Amino acid sequence: MGNSDIDALRAILAASPRPQSLAERRARMEEVTAIDPIDPDIVVTPVDAGGVPGEWSLAPGADPARVLLFLHGGGYSSGSLKSHRTMVTGAGRAGGIRTLAIAYRLAPEHPFPAALDDAEAAYGFLLAHGYAASSIAVGGDSAGGGLTLALFQRLRAKGLDLPACGWLVSPWVDLHMSGASIDAKDAVDPLIHRAYLEMLAEAYLSGGGSRSDPLVSPLHADLSGLPPILIQVGSAETLLDDAVRMAGRLGACDGEVRLSIYPHMIHAWPIWYHRLADGRRALAEAGAFLGERLGG
Amino acid sequence: MGNSDIDALRAILAASPRPQSLAERRARMEEVTAIDPIDPDIVVTPVDAGGVPGEWSLAPGADPARVLLFLHGGGYSSGSLKSHRTMVTGAGRAGGIRTLAIAYRLAPEHPFPAALDDAEAAYGFLLAHGYAASSIAVGGDSAGGGLTLALFQRLRAKGLDLPACGWLVSPWVDLHMSGASIDAKDAVDPLIHRAYLEMLAEAYLSGGGSRSDPLVSPLHADLSGLPPILIQVGSAETLLDDAVRMAGRLGACDGEVRLSIYPHMIHAWPIWYHRLADGRRALAEAGAFLGERLGG
Repeated sequence: MGNSDIDALRAILAASPRPQSLAERRARMEEVTAIDPIDPDIVVTPVDAGGVPGEWSLAPGADPARVLLFLHGGGYSSGSLKSHRTMVTGAGRAGGIRTLAIAYRLAPEHPFPAALDDAEAAYGFLLAHGYAASSIAVGGDSAGGGLTLALFQRLRAKGLDLPACGWLVSPWVDLHMSGASIDAKDAVDPLIHRAYLEMLAEAYLSGGGSRSDPLVSPLHADLSGLPPILIQVGSAETLLDDAVRMAGRLGACDGEVRLSIYPHMIHAWPIWYHRLADGRRALAEAGAFLGERLGG
Repeated sequence: MGNSDIDALRAILAASPRPQSLAERRARMEEVTAIDPIDPDIVVTPVDAGGVPGEWSLAPGADPARVLLFLHGGGYSSGSLKSHRTMVTGAGRAGGIRTLAIAYRLAPEHPFPAALDDAEAAYGFLLAHGYAASSIAVGGDSAGGGLTLALFQRLRAKGLDLPACGWLVSPWVDLHMSGASIDAKDAVDPLIHRAYLEMLAEAYLSGGGSRSDPLVSPLHADLSGLPPILIQVGSAETLLDDAVRMAGRLGACDGEVRLSIYPHMIHAWPIWYHRLADGRRALAEAGAFLGERLGG
């Protein structure tokens, strides 16, 4: 089971001081995620995405007519364009498609449903700029995965065309934290623990709302009529069971879903794909999945 | 959600009289499965596989040095080389590999662990004939999926090299029938219902043994150290949750696993891949998975 690249990453994470305050958490997120540069040949361009700060990326040879709208993780209260830039641009290259990452508003300053409103605005921006829904994928890691499923529900409720597919990495979809892996994987997960999730859930709902709201905890939603979804998760994650149960829930609703479990990988590991062979494998799998399902 | 090919297959299944006796069940299994011929250019050759009746298949251009050992479904009490010949040979073609299907002994005449003993004998036959474990995949549908996981456990317990990977279609891995989908999908599943599963479980254990034995219900097993596993299941199956929970269990044990849920597909649908587009997609996915992981 020797997995030297993940052990080396674990050492880096362990050397970073344990954050306490919100400001420290946000700073640490930026520090530990943005340790590898993006590929120098990928062009990144700032954009106002329907009132939401965003940025395009395009790798040489990628198809600018197909796009991944990406919603970063960080528990709805941290993360940025910078923190996930390497992962997002790497996913675009792997899929041969453009990406649009957005900096949706964060809790607790902007609690639920601000992030969802911003995700919806960015999707509308893409439609207004000529992207057919069938040429759009939506994806995200951690809270961004939950937000992706919230967006799908909102679009469906409004009778809008849904994107071609979804991509969820280590999704956080149950703000009740009722998965068995929350405790079973506690000792091996270097990043995500129950007390931290409790704090994040409180911050996200500090403006009101229930953890049982299907837009907050999509695990409890009616998920019928959603597009094909790829879920990727590491086996060393407290959120393993969020991914597994979400796959089951999507199947119960007759959805097309693929769940891929990567042994010994940690939360949102494709962020560090330059250092992790399984990060590269995950992006290759996601790229193939998106590329096959996005219409031209 | 119109899916005309699966509706047409459902009509064929509905027209076949509901079997009562064991003999009727066995006859119906042969009738409804073997409705499409194998491709005429695939060569099928009978073989004594370590005392177990079997047959090789080889499609033109396939690599005879890599092999899928296939364990058919039928609740441990029905099914044959004939019933699954089309599916098995199709899988071999999709993977570009040889297949070895075996007719393991059936319950109640030969209860647990006869099927497992035969699967082990066939695996030993492959090793004795020069196949490295890294060139062998093991797979099966329904009870054959559970049997695959039982074989992996037995090989591991004996310190033998495990196969390169596993392939489970609609696996039956919980003889307690505790999955929520057993009831939730009862109305939409045309083939598998609780009373039938109870009868099958009793027959399989008519020689003794417990439903909680991890060799009988691999869902409850320690599954650490297993090779990568692909699980495929339809969303219109009472056994949906066997597949989902098994994926979660493998992940809990740090296994590499991919779970693919096919909307509206029924139990063991790749059997009818000539009629079902999603049957062809499933075999293509399985073929790619096996081909990538089998060593030359």
